[in-house]
Amino acid sequence: MELWFSEQHTPNVRLSIKVDRQLFSETTEFQRVDIFESTEFGRILVIDGRIMMTERDEFIYHEMITHVPLCVNPDVRRVLLVGGGDGGSVRELLKYDTIDKIDLVEVDEAVVRACRKFIPKTAACLDNPRVEIFFADGLKFIRRKENFYDLIIVDYTDPLGAGEGLFTREFYGNCFAALTVGGIMVNQHENPFYSSDIAAMQRAHKRLTASFPIVRAYQIHIPTYPAGQWLFGFASKKFHPTRDVDLARWNSLALQTNYYNTRIHVGAFALPTYVMKTLSAAE
Amino acid sequence: MELWFSEQHTPNVRLSIKVDRQLFSETTEFQRVDIFESTEFGRILVIDGRIMMTERDEFIYHEMITHVPLCVNPDVRRVLLVGGGDGGSVRELLKYDTIDKIDLVEVDEAVVRACRKFIPKTAACLDNPRVEIFFADGLKFIRRKENFYDLIIVDYTDPLGAGEGLFTREFYGNCFAALTVGGIMVNQHENPFYSSDIAAMQRAHKRLTASFPIVRAYQIHIPTYPAGQWLFGFASKKFHPTRDVDLARWNSLALQTNYYNTRIHVGAFALPTYVMKTLSAAE
Repeated sequence: MELWFSEQHTPNVRLSIKVDRQLFSETTEFQRVDIFESTEFGRILVIDGRIMMTERDEFIYHEMITHVPLCVNPDVRRVLLVGGGDGGSVRELLKYDTIDKIDLVEVDEAVVRACRKFIPKTAACLDNPRVEIFFADGLKFIRRKENFYDLIIVDYTDPLGAGEGLFTREFYGNCFAALTVGGIMVNQHENPFYSSDIAAMQRAHKRLTASFPIVRAYQIHIPTYPAGQWLFGFASKKFHPTRDVDLARWNSLALQTNYYNTRIHVGAFALPTYVMKTLSAAE
Repeated sequence: MELWFSEQHTPNVRLSIKVDRQLFSETTEFQRVDIFESTEFGRILVIDGRIMMTERDEFIYHEMITHVPLCVNPDVRRVLLVGGGDGGSVRELLKYDTIDKIDLVEVDEAVVRACRKFIPKTAACLDNPRVEIFFADGLKFIRRKENFYDLIIVDYTDPLGAGEGLFTREFYGNCFAALTVGGIMVNQHENPFYSSDIAAMQRAHKRLTASFPIVRAYQIHIPTYPAGQWLFGFASKKFHPTRDVDLARWNSLALQTNYYNTRIHVGAFALPTYVMKTLSAAE
């Protein structure tokens, strides 16, 4: 039997992956959540038809969304993770002994439940005592906090689905207020290639630059995302991501990573000319 | 009507692009050559079922295969291009007034003929008087040359098709001999992600390191290639690609590019840890 999962990257482009079987499928009040088993990518988490992560390439996304800010500020103690119910970002954050507490705010408990059961590779770490999970709306959750977190990561990939509120200007302003003086925020800057996605990238960038004094985008190669490319936004109250960074200090921690290293830390902020132009146009 | 072109990136992964129509199709003694018209990617050149270039993203490949070596050695006068019958690399090379002569050795005249007719965006430049086209086998052509070219670019993407001979150790040794003392060679280092492609990447790297004292791989994001990622190998007799380079000089040329810039020149050589490990294992 042949069973293929396809994701439309645009109405004219699709990526298809042969799957062995569907392990989980549930339509919640927020979204549809599916998990597939596949030969090429291992287990695949799909939300509303879009690949969120696969066991085979999730290390790229999760290492780059966490180690970049942690290298810039290795003194981070309190982290807020908005989204990220699969646990991949938590797993990477827990590599730092200096982190006391990770608050994970996930709107949909079904994501956590499904990943705990079927994707322990990322979700097993969610039982760690340094992690607290809140099933809540990130936008509301952040309103209550002030000068509290050293790092906020928006691990939420879809600005048109359940995560839409997370991308409003109010949300970014609240994140700024919730961060400590050395605070860093990382958000989704989307895929810069397809014309149908560029507006989302520009919107994310514009909102971040409206709230933070230092904003730089950085890029990753991730095979299962549209065009194989994804941008994160690095926003900070005082640290520039490549000038105010002690790369030797990060290397001295001797953490095991498979994508991230301090050379690619710097290299990831070097963007193609067409991406720089598109971001500048949004500032 | 719906007409979809699909390329299998592995037996379990395929990328599909909706096409309007097929403009060209010919099976030559070397390979099958097709050109499609599409909404998302413009015209698409396909050889043996694999996408060689599309009008929409070819700038990424062609800028990065040419401007990287030209930035390192802006005194290049004679260039040998093996493959590259679509003309995209030639177009970029012709931006340098310092280049006197480009020899293009393409094994299959059908590629040049089809691109001249259907993809003038890249092929129109092939009529430039600084360009000479040889319909010949690159492996044999290079045997006759010694201390002649300042730059050799292997613009040939498939180590298993008609280009197989180009990847042999003899070929690299002959290229070394054909290069001047400051000579640079750029080759295909393939896609580093899928396990089915890693052997080809390691073979390309091994052969280059066996022939040249300085070899470094660099990466590009290209949406229509497997995993959205591609590596080039930079090999040189004396220039290190990021240490022996005058970035300000390249910027002073004020060339128009859409992907390449001097920050990404450096950034592209910063490879993910898993890619570095795989390359090191082949050295």
